[in-house]
Amino acid sequence: MIYPMKRILIKDLHDHIGKEVTIAGWVDIRRDHGKLVFIDLRDMSGIVQMVALPNNGQAHESAHTLRPEWVIQVHGKVNKRPEKMINANVPTGDIEIEMLKIEVLCKAHELPFEKNAELNLDTYLDNLPLTLRTERAQAIFRVQAHIIKAFRDFLTQENFTEIQIPKIVGGDAEGGAAVFPIEYFGHTAYLATSPQLYKQIMVGVFERVFATGNIYRAEKHSTTRHINEYTSLDLEMGFIKDHTDIMELESRFLHFLHKQLKENCADEFKLLKAEFPLLPNELPSLKLREAQEIIKKETGEDYTNAPDLEPSHERWLSEYAKKKFDSDFIFITHYPVKKRPFYTYEDEADPGYTKSFDLLFRGLEITTGGQRIHDYDNLVRNIEAWGLSPEKFSYYLQGFKSGMPPEGGLAIGLERITAKLLGLENIKEATLFPRDLNRIDTLLSS
Amino acid sequence: MIYPMKRILIKDLHDHIGKEVTIAGWVDIRRDHGKLVFIDLRDMSGIVQMVALPNNGQAHESAHTLRPEWVIQVHGKVNKRPEKMINANVPTGDIEIEMLKIEVLCKAHELPFEKNAELNLDTYLDNLPLTLRTERAQAIFRVQAHIIKAFRDFLTQENFTEIQIPKIVGGDAEGGAAVFPIEYFGHTAYLATSPQLYKQIMVGVFERVFATGNIYRAEKHSTTRHINEYTSLDLEMGFIKDHTDIMELESRFLHFLHKQLKENCADEFKLLKAEFPLLPNELPSLKLREAQEIIKKETGEDYTNAPDLEPSHERWLSEYAKKKFDSDFIFITHYPVKKRPFYTYEDEADPGYTKSFDLLFRGLEITTGGQRIHDYDNLVRNIEAWGLSPEKFSYYLQGFKSGMPPEGGLAIGLERITAKLLGLENIKEATLFPRDLNRIDTLLSS
Repeated sequence: MIYPMKRILIKDLHDHIGKEVTIAGWVDIRRDHGKLVFIDLRDMSGIVQMVALPNNGQAHESAHTLRPEWVIQVHGKVNKRPEKMINANVPTGDIEIEMLKIEVLCKAHELPFEKNAELNLDTYLDNLPLTLRTERAQAIFRVQAHIIKAFRDFLTQENFTEIQIPKIVGGDAEGGAAVFPIEYFGHTAYLATSPQLYKQIMVGVFERVFATGNIYRAEKHSTTRHINEYTSLDLEMGFIKDHTDIMELESRFLHFLHKQLKENCADEFKLLKAEFPLLPNELPSLKLREAQEIIKKETGEDYTNAPDLEPSHERWLSEYAKKKFDSDFIFITHYPVKKRPFYTYEDEADPGYTKSFDLLFRGLEITTGGQRIHDYDNLVRNIEAWGLSPEKFSYYLQGFKSGMPPEGGLAIGLERITAKLLGLENIKEATLFPRDLNRIDTLLSS
Repeated sequence: MIYPMKRILIKDLHDHIGKEVTIAGWVDIRRDHGKLVFIDLRDMSGIVQMVALPNNGQAHESAHTLRPEWVIQVHGKVNKRPEKMINANVPTGDIEIEMLKIEVLCKAHELPFEKNAELNLDTYLDNLPLTLRTERAQAIFRVQAHIIKAFRDFLTQENFTEIQIPKIVGGDAEGGAAVFPIEYFGHTAYLATSPQLYKQIMVGVFERVFATGNIYRAEKHSTTRHINEYTSLDLEMGFIKDHTDIMELESRFLHFLHKQLKENCADEFKLLKAEFPLLPNELPSLKLREAQEIIKKETGEDYTNAPDLEPSHERWLSEYAKKKFDSDFIFITHYPVKKRPFYTYEDEADPGYTKSFDLLFRGLEITTGGQRIHDYDNLVRNIEAWGLSPEKFSYYLQGFKSGMPPEGGLAIGLERITAKLLGLENIKEATLFPRDLNRIDTLLSS
């Protein structure tokens, strides 16, 4: 019979010392010493060592047969370990379960490799239903769940309203990025490259909105920092004075996130040997041209006419910010008008350059944001200047025809911030089931 | 100059009576009485009446020129209204702003119709960037934001972990529903019809998981209850005794949601003339066959051999549950094995029928759920019995080969529960930018 008693989670076993309990989970490791059989049992809340003694009858007999990843239910007694047997490195290191009865709920097949084996990335990805069960992968995606929760909680406090944005669109949101076409009832539609146009429309409705959803880029990248489907943490807000209001909001979000992670994910950071970021009260900020001048002066590399940063210079600037400002973050502002999408606001005080920013974190751009054009006529003029058709954007333009406050926003790549926070080398390690040029779960045949 | 003083939100004006403040928002209504000009100003937090007196100079002059939906910033004084001028129906009905200075931040073009005009659904949808600004639409999507928040908050309390699930898939998750094909780097991929297979895999990792994301159905429906892209509130959990654990969890979620909505959305319910649902402590539940017998007995319509309920019978059963059990909800369980997807668990005690359920709410199915097959061999057998290829599901099957506890889950359609809670006739009113057979924002050309 399943669950004769209420199941107790492993993390709560300390409340039951000296008592009999029912616990359930996966066999993590079995160590068979003949007379004594030790099983490490894993559930959603932790791992505990269990022992079957020779006089434990059914439990002792059954324990010999168990294999890794079998799912079992155990009735047993929670014993305190003698002082000298305590393992201080494990939360349950001071207790042990004496198994009295074992029930096998599901036998696993023989595993293709040990769960904690060192694997190359392709083997890891080929076997995610198993490899995601490692402590390492669990820790990564627990932290990720806390990041997205912190984003929503912070913005809810700040009077933002969550919105659900469609991903099937009639055209490309930004008029530039590569898109995936969809067959839509005899028409060609596309997967959204960003929720940009919809979140701007919604500023006209709620002033402050956020969305957390998947977006799609069809670029044929094959790097450690790109994937083709990812989660974008988007916000957009009205009644700003300029882009610095958005930067200030992001800075406060990062402090909020930092606090949440320290409170809730210290164990995960420890397990992953990840360091909490250097996050000063005021984040450093440079105009792109200032950054390029510093790079030229310090490294001799002259990119002062480049419209954007090279990946190597993003890394260099992050090192610079760390040394000079004790910060793992640095804002780069004022990208040239022509390098940014049509809706980007030109700085009247710095013509040819925009009230836009990127945020670099440990060498990688994790955010793009800025002030947007809110005036209908200016927006139409820019759409035309970008060689696009205002007709194609007529739905979006309604929002501006109907009166829009000065507004701006940003997007944070969830997988990128996860990877950089946790020191992961490849963004695919921060993506549950990554889609790329070669893979949808399994490798695509060529 | 923009924002000479910190902007105050309309809902906070009561803290500033007798003082000068800066507020900003949209012109909701202008009433021009010659000497006196009244403006109702709307911001994200509410609406307040403002007045320009003849001696207000610039403000009086400017107020005459304002038009609906212009975005303005106002410097003014917060006055208490005389007793006999108080409007008790509005939160700010006891105050009035005397405008001292007006700055126009953005002029709207002339509107195609008055914002609050009665419109047919197509005109409403053609003009969402404007029509979503009505109090009615704002209220609907504020409530929707609270529903999705309640879902996440409840499950987080219950030790569930949020996961991000891909929507680009290599095949159809359920082997049945119509799908949208995507061109994916020279291959054909599909838009996911459900996160089902991934959330099951993830039970092997975290035991309890939830996801809130878009899903896609390519059926050529044209009804008041179907859309082609919608938001699915999904959960899946391990170590259950059977489907009734999932039903019990959903029941507790509905009580949690009810409480949250009463606390946070009473104004929205009032505005929409929506009634909070009848939600008894224990929700009624009938097997499909029991329900069919009752329908036959009470209405004479014999559908006792039908594998599913007709929409008219879903409505009839909801009325029945209301009269008999004082409940706006009723579970229907034990659909026939052949009517459910291959992963559905057959009830050993009731062969031919499954441990599955639908939840009907005010005449509409808003949830499908149940226990799933967790044993690898049984699952493979069923995939074959459904005429599908286990090869095609090899990635998914790894999760079961690696040991899976007894598990189950459910999905709630966010737009459906929103519509039914708020008494909306068409699900499109509960969808921010609905996609259907004929429309992606604008009507598709035929």
